[in-house]
Amino acid sequence: MPAPSDYDEFAYIEWIRAHVSGHSRLTLGIGDDTASLHFPAPADCLITVDMLLEGVHFQIPPLTPRNAGRKALAVNLSDLAAMAGQPLAAVVSVAFPRGRKPDFHRELHRGIQELADQFGVAVAGGDTNTWDGPLVISVSVVGEATGSAAVRRNGARVGDWILTTGSFGGSLAGKHVSFQPRVNEALQLHQAVSLHAMIDVSDGLAADLHHVLQESGVGAVLSADAIPISEAARSATDERTAIERALGDGEDFELLFTVTPQEGRKLLSEPPVDVKLSHIGEIVEPKTCELKDSAGVRRLLLPTGWTHAF
Amino acid sequence: MPAPSDYDEFAYIEWIRAHVSGHSRLTLGIGDDTASLHFPAPADCLITVDMLLEGVHFQIPPLTPRNAGRKALAVNLSDLAAMAGQPLAAVVSVAFPRGRKPDFHRELHRGIQELADQFGVAVAGGDTNTWDGPLVISVSVVGEATGSAAVRRNGARVGDWILTTGSFGGSLAGKHVSFQPRVNEALQLHQAVSLHAMIDVSDGLAADLHHVLQESGVGAVLSADAIPISEAARSATDERTAIERALGDGEDFELLFTVTPQEGRKLLSEPPVDVKLSHIGEIVEPKTCELKDSAGVRRLLLPTGWTHAF
Repeated sequence: MPAPSDYDEFAYIEWIRAHVSGHSRLTLGIGDDTASLHFPAPADCLITVDMLLEGVHFQIPPLTPRNAGRKALAVNLSDLAAMAGQPLAAVVSVAFPRGRKPDFHRELHRGIQELADQFGVAVAGGDTNTWDGPLVISVSVVGEATGSAAVRRNGARVGDWILTTGSFGGSLAGKHVSFQPRVNEALQLHQAVSLHAMIDVSDGLAADLHHVLQESGVGAVLSADAIPISEAARSATDERTAIERALGDGEDFELLFTVTPQEGRKLLSEPPVDVKLSHIGEIVEPKTCELKDSAGVRRLLLPTGWTHAF
Repeated sequence: MPAPSDYDEFAYIEWIRAHVSGHSRLTLGIGDDTASLHFPAPADCLITVDMLLEGVHFQIPPLTPRNAGRKALAVNLSDLAAMAGQPLAAVVSVAFPRGRKPDFHRELHRGIQELADQFGVAVAGGDTNTWDGPLVISVSVVGEATGSAAVRRNGARVGDWILTTGSFGGSLAGKHVSFQPRVNEALQLHQAVSLHAMIDVSDGLAADLHHVLQESGVGAVLSADAIPISEAARSATDERTAIERALGDGEDFELLFTVTPQEGRKLLSEPPVDVKLSHIGEIVEPKTCELKDSAGVRRLLLPTGWTHAF
């Protein structure tokens, strides 16, 4: 798998090889042409990839290489969570800016490894390169569907309640680096109720809700008062309102999902997860997305999080 | 999975979604948070990743975006071949240089798709970005082990014959773009005989042989006269000899493998593959790698392909 261009990179790979954790399902890790992950029974193998680019998705500083490594894995774990999948293994390709010291390389790996260990994910392989460009990290995570099937975006049904974990907006103040991918929460929710549709909120609450609506062929009405607005969104000082930040900011990495009203009530009265659950709206037949204020006035909610009067 | 930064990228993803091929094992393709690949029985899932960087691994021109896309998948298929694995699905993360026309993006996908179709691989998902840097393509391929198990690097035994497919050297004259990953040949060989160890030659014949020797804890003696030297290596005009090019150039993407002498003879007398097989040497106990000339003189063979007198 690795085709490094010089011996420092071989040395880095050997260092990683000595620092990764074992995994009961990993039948072959770093050091061959591919990794190998055992599926002991018929399974749906989930696969995702995300690429983070220095100067686009992050800057070092203020982030450290450890932050960047952690985040590159975390965004993928969030994608697995969105399917209620169990992540199992990650492969990592990196382009390092030339001239960085070994500790820069190692800190990046430590950021990945710590989060991988927290979620029981094997760091199974990778490809390491050095170049004259900025830092590039691409992580691909493989996992497996749990329960009866993976939870897709396209299953929202008219009448469903729309629920979310956590709170929204202002992630760039810090949460975008330190967020906890909602892997365990998704598994707990998937066990407790029938999740009709689910997505992780990376583009923004309004944008990702629109993805669910588009794939499901339905619309939604959200209650402005019910949107859980983060402290960071409340205390920000740009020209927008707090709710516009909550609807538009992105990088919250919370879950948005739909269930029957009955199961929604069950989740709110006996939450199977520690994180706050909020009932923010309903799925409706007309294929529009509206935001309703406390006076009952409805406005069109755009994927950007901005609202327009009808 | 995709978190594009603007609507052109959404449009590109929708274009790809309309142009990918179906796959019997793909239960969920582009358009959700992860892809899903079905394993109908217990299996070892093989995973690999390779990142290609413009300015490091290729230049556009002389390569086209279609060439670059094809190559980014092809190097991964070669890794699957090295394990005698059946590739099933690929996910692709790309950083496009800003300002390229849609046709640049589409040609890159066409290069990937054509090769994917040739080998029955599903283009299952990806992540598309635009930035001010050069083109970056990271492809991760998932497949499954065939036969009794995947063929590793660490199984070479003293007395084994070392065999290769095809010929070596001078790949940069053209083969590095147009090479056929030896996926089918590897599957045919794996069915015909017991492959003790295998690797694909990407770093160079000598370098990759050294990887096998190191992982297996053995040495090798190669016969200089038996090394299959490509026409490109014979006709090159740098300061090296043709055999030095064959041993050191890299990017041949041929297979190097070891079998018992008995199975080696069987392969040479009744080859199960169309591509030329060559018996280039033997595995020995002393943990050195030597090159023996026609007069029987032995020299130390370095991973770079250069030889040194003892």
